[in-house]
Amino acid sequence: MPTRHDGRAPDTLRPVAIDLDPPSSAAGKAMISAGNTVVLCTASIDDDVPPWMAGRGRGWVTAEYSMLPGSTGDRKRRDRGPKLDGRTSEIQRLIGRSLRAAVNLEGLGERTVTVDCDVLRADGGTRTASITGAFVALVRALDTVGAASAAITSSVAAVSVGVVDGTPVLDLDYPEDVRAEVDMNVVTTGEGEFIEVQGTGEGATFSRGQLDGMLELAGVGIEQLTALQKRTLGERWPL
Amino acid sequence: MPTRHDGRAPDTLRPVAIDLDPPSSAAGKAMISAGNTVVLCTASIDDDVPPWMAGRGRGWVTAEYSMLPGSTGDRKRRDRGPKLDGRTSEIQRLIGRSLRAAVNLEGLGERTVTVDCDVLRADGGTRTASITGAFVALVRALDTVGAASAAITSSVAAVSVGVVDGTPVLDLDYPEDVRAEVDMNVVTTGEGEFIEVQGTGEGATFSRGQLDGMLELAGVGIEQLTALQKRTLGERWPL
Amino acid sequence: MPTRHDGRAPDTLRPVAIDLDPPSSAAGKAMISAGNTVVLCTASIDDDVPPWMAGRGRGWVTAEYSMLPGSTGDRKRRDRGPKLDGRTSEIQRLIGRSLRAAVNLEGLGERTVTVDCDVLRADGGTRTASITGAFVALVRALDTVGAASAAITSSVAAVSVGVVDGTPVLDLDYPEDVRAEVDMNVVTTGEGEFIEVQGTGEGATFSRGQLDGMLELAGVGIEQLTALQKRTLGERWPL
Amino acid sequence: MPTRHDGRAPDTLRPVAIDLDPPSSAAGKAMISAGNTVVLCTASIDDDVPPWMAGRGRGWVTAEYSMLPGSTGDRKRRDRGPKLDGRTSEIQRLIGRSLRAAVNLEGLGERTVTVDCDVLRADGGTRTASITGAFVALVRALDTVGAASAAITSSVAAVSVGVVDGTPVLDLDYPEDVRAEVDMNVVTTGEGEFIEVQGTGEGATFSRGQLDGMLELAGVGIEQLTALQKRTLGERWPL
Amino acid sequence: MPTRHDGRAPDTLRPVAIDLDPPSSAAGKAMISAGNTVVLCTASIDDDVPPWMAGRGRGWVTAEYSMLPGSTGDRKRRDRGPKLDGRTSEIQRLIGRSLRAAVNLEGLGERTVTVDCDVLRADGGTRTASITGAFVALVRALDTVGAASAAITSSVAAVSVGVVDGTPVLDLDYPEDVRAEVDMNVVTTGEGEFIEVQGTGEGATFSRGQLDGMLELAGVGIEQLTALQKRTLGERWPL
Amino acid sequence: MPTRHDGRAPDTLRPVAIDLDPPSSAAGKAMISAGNTVVLCTASIDDDVPPWMAGRGRGWVTAEYSMLPGSTGDRKRRDRGPKLDGRTSEIQRLIGRSLRAAVNLEGLGERTVTVDCDVLRADGGTRTASITGAFVALVRALDTVGAASAAITSSVAAVSVGVVDGTPVLDLDYPEDVRAEVDMNVVTTGEGEFIEVQGTGEGATFSRGQLDGMLELAGVGIEQLTALQKRTLGERWPL
Repeated sequence: MPTRHDGRAPDTLRPVAIDLDPPSSAAGKAMISAGNTVVLCTASIDDDVPPWMAGRGRGWVTAEYSMLPGSTGDRKRRDRGPKLDGRTSEIQRLIGRSLRAAVNLEGLGERTVTVDCDVLRADGGTRTASITGAFVALVRALDTVGAASAAITSSVAAVSVGVVDGTPVLDLDYPEDVRAEVDMNVVTTGEGEFIEVQGTGEGATFSRGQLDGMLELAGVGIEQLTALQKRTLGERWPL
Repeated sequence: MPTRHDGRAPDTLRPVAIDLDPPSSAAGKAMISAGNTVVLCTASIDDDVPPWMAGRGRGWVTAEYSMLPGSTGDRKRRDRGPKLDGRTSEIQRLIGRSLRAAVNLEGLGERTVTVDCDVLRADGGTRTASITGAFVALVRALDTVGAASAAITSSVAAVSVGVVDGTPVLDLDYPEDVRAEVDMNVVTTGEGEFIEVQGTGEGATFSRGQLDGMLELAGVGIEQLTALQKRTLGERWPL
Repeated sequence: MPTRHDGRAPDTLRPVAIDLDPPSSAAGKAMISAGNTVVLCTASIDDDVPPWMAGRGRGWVTAEYSMLPGSTGDRKRRDRGPKLDGRTSEIQRLIGRSLRAAVNLEGLGERTVTVDCDVLRADGGTRTASITGAFVALVRALDTVGAASAAITSSVAAVSVGVVDGTPVLDLDYPEDVRAEVDMNVVTTGEGEFIEVQGTGEGATFSRGQLDGMLELAGVGIEQLTALQKRTLGERWPL
Repeated sequence: MPTRHDGRAPDTLRPVAIDLDPPSSAAGKAMISAGNTVVLCTASIDDDVPPWMAGRGRGWVTAEYSMLPGSTGDRKRRDRGPKLDGRTSEIQRLIGRSLRAAVNLEGLGERTVTVDCDVLRADGGTRTASITGAFVALVRALDTVGAASAAITSSVAAVSVGVVDGTPVLDLDYPEDVRAEVDMNVVTTGEGEFIEVQGTGEGATFSRGQLDGMLELAGVGIEQLTALQKRTLGERWPL
Repeated sequence: MPTRHDGRAPDTLRPVAIDLDPPSSAAGKAMISAGNTVVLCTASIDDDVPPWMAGRGRGWVTAEYSMLPGSTGDRKRRDRGPKLDGRTSEIQRLIGRSLRAAVNLEGLGERTVTVDCDVLRADGGTRTASITGAFVALVRALDTVGAASAAITSSVAAVSVGVVDGTPVLDLDYPEDVRAEVDMNVVTTGEGEFIEVQGTGEGATFSRGQLDGMLELAGVGIEQLTALQKRTLGERWPL
Repeated sequence: MPTRHDGRAPDTLRPVAIDLDPPSSAAGKAMISAGNTVVLCTASIDDDVPPWMAGRGRGWVTAEYSMLPGSTGDRKRRDRGPKLDGRTSEIQRLIGRSLRAAVNLEGLGERTVTVDCDVLRADGGTRTASITGAFVALVRALDTVGAASAAITSSVAAVSVGVVDGTPVLDLDYPEDVRAEVDMNVVTTGEGEFIEVQGTGEGATFSRGQLDGMLELAGVGIEQLTALQKRTLGERWPL
């Protein structure tokens, strides 16, 4: 089996850690690192919902994603123009949808939780690390209002997979991501049910066999990420 | 096998047609209808490329997507604000990526092709109909400059699949889309190689078995759409 | 009498037609073609009025105008920036004012009708074709809520006239428009009363005699357009 | 003959004056007052042209229009949003077109003149007063670079006319403007050739006879305004 | 003692005047000139407060600042883009804060006063002239609703000071401002209590001794400006 | 002497630390904490300058400032709208000016350094902590291109002072800031020369004696901050 540029086997995650006490004032917070990628996830609760859903006894969960200017070697320009960058918009919609798949909006009550994922250092896989960390920040925030067990219906974690030099690999870092023929993000519950599958040929196409190979690797990775989430939250694990 | 609200079997497409002569001044044009969904696809060629890719002997293909105000029963507000709507941005990025997967950018030469997909009537599946129609408009536009056979490397078509009431179904219309537990868009080449797979649980998750079922239906549908593209283009089929 | 580049006499309209069933989901719809110019006009009713006119028992009629990217030979960039293009803004204000001149806003009740004019193919006279078609779409939309006869007080149609090579001519196409010394848009009721007169010297000035000549031609053209509107609407003609 | 609310006859202008030395640093400046309406017109010259017209040996004249917040009794909000107000856009396009009709752009050389019309006090007729004052500021600015006689081909002045209580009247003030059935702006050269005619029924229509009556009054008014321009500029009159 | 380029001693103001009747429709108005700098200050009253402070029986005072295009020799582009220029934003926040320091917001009642400072000619010191003139316009506007004595708690005036060629000087004009090593704006009450002190080294730093020297000069200047305000308002002086 | 709500004496700083290795990819980085306030400062170098200063052999230093959404207890909305918030704009202009006062732009060469100050946790004094940390990040970034000693001419540090309950105090935290009668930010070089002094009465005014008291406290604080900067940078101290 060929090894990867950093010596990992195709089915091996980068070292991953979740810090529950990064500097922040948010109700829920978690800083996740996956290799060199570091994302600060914070969750804030507002005892209100958007006007279009008021009075239905249900809450809402939304997400924002941003890369700090220093997160990349060449400075990343801030998303301050009148137009939100298309990639940013896509990612934050994905994070929001993924979290909502794990939340009972009735159990949440008429509250809005906004989860912010701010990338401090980017080395591939920022959107999937954001989702995995965001779930932990969300649980912590809901805990502060005693709503975690009523609102959380499953755990959520995500990982990237891809095809590099014809071989499916797990958890691509940035140099691999640039060379990948296929890039795929998989979000599942802790039980392995799919929430979101997004695979894209990057100037290439992919076969059914490669798709199956990538899905299998994603399952391997997410199992480990779910175990880390559970270990990190300890007795706060809401399920 | 349960029938659907419009009487179709789970693996049946809506009636689909491609009109090569809709009213438009664009170099390439195709109006596609899939059931009640109607999209006007036009392709314009600019003998220039964006500054960041000038002088490399390669071209570029990009896409824009828009829904006309009258395309929906409740008037759809125009995307005129300073912020492009996130959904619109996602869709036009998807269309552009899908088309580029079928184009040899060197063979295109230093030209930019912009494919516009304007939805005249929306009844589900507008983004996949856009891709299928956009491919035809693209070929027609490239034909006018004699570049179709050098630039086109495969055909592209797309279809939506989903899970409705627990059953995988092909080519959802709007009423089905609203009720679907899972919504998936599949883009492939005419040979069935994947270009893009995007599956989303809508407040629900999906199993591996359901994923496999949806992929199979997509294959069935795209085969028919590719045949229609080929029949419509006739001797202009570039492959 | 000199003939024009397309063989028409100075006082002859281009072939004009109104299709009552173009693909659209709007309550009222009409696709008008005048020569190669084609405009899709759709009218949507909202059972509400802008905040500043609520509670006065009156409705409102407004219009939007847009050219599709493929409507011109060189692709027309979409009006998506933060600033609405000045020409677009002028035209949609003109369409809205012209329609309101034919509507009894009390008879309309507390409703807002938005008429959208989307140009599919542009060959001169798009704003006047928009007005003529918009009136038909407006009547159709009001018909669906049984308000046409109470709200409509007269018919409205419009035509362009101009001075080309020193001669007043009716209904300029794009090549004539580019060469015209004077460009004038005339909007009247079916009875020939003026609603709007806008004449502009294009790098030239015009005499009182030329103004009178253009107004006479406009009268000739609008009489035929009104007859077409009436014939098209048949028994739905609200007057 | 009925008199008007301020005692004027239908064919009488309000007192009008042009001050050549208002506080401003611009190359050309003129403050025009027509009754209570006061507009500061300033013209600035840039030895450059917009990119799209460089290298053709021709110049450009453009205009901007703005109402100061204190120009109206209820504070006028500044045009600072991302969208330029439609009315403002229309007026500044009209001023620019009107001035260009009087300028030989080749004679101007590769320069851009921007004429700014800032309304200090608004009491009706601000756009026509702007045009009349702007012509004077333009001449003064061109004088500073010795280009007035080569660039100016005719004088330009403008006035509003309208129908109030069924009678055509000249130079409406704000209270008349609010009540007018028809509002018309007429721009002509000093010789009375038309540059622009814009007549609008305000919730009413107008007959050919009323149109003729308004055009006649406009001629009377503009003759006096042209005489004032000439008297004010004295030996700087460029024609 | 060295004299300045215009012959003034270091502690001498430019000639300053306040005109209470400039052309404007605002409730309160004052045109201040300081040397060649001329600012039109107008104050408008709205019998309402921003939503976030409604129902507390208090009012609000806010300010806007703008330079007319002709106020500078090279035309100043209007602040019309989506982003308000940083300098403009800073200045109007400063003017608003300075005025509020002199107003009892309870005494004002539930009203909003907006003070607009529009620079007609700029020759240095526009922000401090704006503050000194704005106070006069504010008093005049409050007078029209009989609220001046209840709302005004002190007078406010401002002046610029700086270090030029190592020497502290009072009331810099534009040529001095460009050359200044330090630029400082001082706002005080009529009694000399500080409201705002903003000193900035322009590519240079400044010592404690220079700071003290500048503060002393500012005191000298503001005393004269306060006397002028009092003399101008005469019996309307509210204190 | 009264003690403060957190037990500090009026002339005592909060505990302050600078971490040279926070997670970031920027060339220069420093995370500064002052009490609970934490700011991530990163400096990126671009081998280019803005167009308006190209070809003069000089560089440029600019800054951006932002608060992360989780930095405050109530979620702070991102600065993503078309208008940059006035406060943000003011602060980033202050940071940029302060750093440039310590840099020889010729010594920097034709490079642009952008220093980003992202507030992770806000508890008062974020703008002054940003300046103190930004200087360290700037030195580190210049070090990577060997330009620190040629470009840096002095050190820069900043602190806030204020008047709380009539007493001048050093380094206000958020609860003090809210209650302060006067708020002042002082930026100086390591030698104590002033770069910027900004004092604002918050609904109150201040006397010369209070101003002197605050300036003295600022000197005490900045001396300690400069010592910390020097100690942290060790042999990389560029002076």
